[in-house]
Amino acid sequence: MENKEIWLESLITKTPQEGRELAIKMSRKSIAAIQTDPEIRKSLRKDYASDTAQLIASANVIAIEFQTIAQANNYWK
Amino acid sequence: MENKEIWLESLITKTPQEGRELAIKMSRKSIAAIQTDPEIRKSLRKDYASDTAQLIASANVIAIEFQTIAQANNYWK
Amino acid sequence: MENKEIWLESLITKTPQEGRELAIKMSRKSIAAIQTDPEIRKSLRKDYASDTAQLIASANVIAIEFQTIAQANNYWK
Amino acid sequence: MENKEIWLESLITKTPQEGRELAIKMSRKSIAAIQTDPEIRKSLRKDYASDTAQLIASANVIAIEFQTIAQANNYWK
Amino acid sequence: MENKEIWLESLITKTPQEGRELAIKMSRKSIAAIQTDPEIRKSLRKDYASDTAQLIASANVIAIEFQTIAQANNYWK
Amino acid sequence: MENKEIWLESLITKTPQEGRELAIKMSRKSIAAIQTDPEIRKSLRKDYASDTAQLIASANVIAIEFQTIAQANNYWK
Repeated sequence: MENKEIWLESLITKTPQEGRELAIKMSRKSIAAIQTDPEIRKSLRKDYASDTAQLIASANVIAIEFQTIAQANNYWK
Repeated sequence: MENKEIWLESLITKTPQEGRELAIKMSRKSIAAIQTDPEIRKSLRKDYASDTAQLIASANVIAIEFQTIAQANNYWK
Repeated sequence: MENKEIWLESLITKTPQEGRELAIKMSRKSIAAIQTDPEIRKSLRKDYASDTAQLIASANVIAIEFQTIAQANNYWK
Repeated sequence: MENKEIWLESLITKTPQEGRELAIKMSRKSIAAIQTDPEIRKSLRKDYASDTAQLIASANVIAIEFQTIAQANNYWK
Repeated sequence: MENKEIWLESLITKTPQEGRELAIKMSRKSIAAIQTDPEIRKSLRKDYASDTAQLIASANVIAIEFQTIAQANNYWK
Repeated sequence: MENKEIWLESLITKTPQEGRELAIKMSRKSIAAIQTDPEIRKSLRKDYASDTAQLIASANVIAIEFQTIAQANNYWK
């Protein structure tokens, strides 16, 4: 592991909604791990934010990430 | 976390059908988190509501979200 | 919750095959929740029933919904 | 439930490989539930059997169905 | 069940990496179950091995199959 | 199993973030298992790193792989 930003210290969140926010962050970090240039990512963002198929595909990723987070938090019960 | 609307206080719902409604809400909120402009979302909505491939992809997201909700509710048993 | 048809009272079914039927129903209800006009849905149905990619994508949704139902029923063991 | 063929009496299979076969059967039955005309299904089959994207999408469905079957069988342990 | 090659006797593998190899094998066997002609499969292979979208879709299938195998092996703990 | 590099000795990682890195590695190794020529993979990489649909599809794979890793690590609790 090289010297890099620590962005995921824990899967535990205080509330379900913070779990949603973490799910979104995890999805974005995956994309950033593949497309490492922030300028290119910024320019690409315009593309998919207006393409419903890609918005739905993004929501699919978030749903999977959230499933993991919800299990980690025992569903905040 | 900035000052924002709290829309997900709990994954617990009274009935399975309310669980379905929450799954749909969660899917929509994911899209709203990426495409933050409500006017653009409204205009995009026409696109995907008549595109069967996108309707099916949306149903895929709802199915995943519901899986999480059903587990949280111990399947309403 | 507005005044609406109750179509999902329980995830429990008598047999695995009834579980399959419920999975199909859940998939269809997701689509109906997004495309609320029954006439448009009917016209769209012709499209995807002859498009293998969309048939396979529909089967993907059914598989996920069934996974939830099977867990709820403890696999009908 | 109307009068119809019973094709799924149980998720239990003797071996993992029979579990694979059941997963394939379940995927096919989902498609048959949407495209109910066997003649059309037969003609469509030629399409997707030579389209790698659709073959891979079919394998995705089989993988999900098998996950459910494997859990039902406690992984044949 | 007809007389056919037994290729999946168990989901148990000695190591996680052998679990990956089994996941890849399971994905391939799904495709072979649908496209039964080995010559056609061979010719199709060239197509998807250079198409990143299909490579990623294949990786999605492998990830799902591996999830099942990892559970069967109690994560090799 | 032929003589080959051992790259996956365990699903256990010290931190969630290392779990993310393993998920990314697993996704890449799946692609490398199908497209075995490193030169071709390198040339393909340019394609998908600028294609948002493929970036999102890659994030979907990572999310599934991470789900398995998180379960193996009992969510690092």
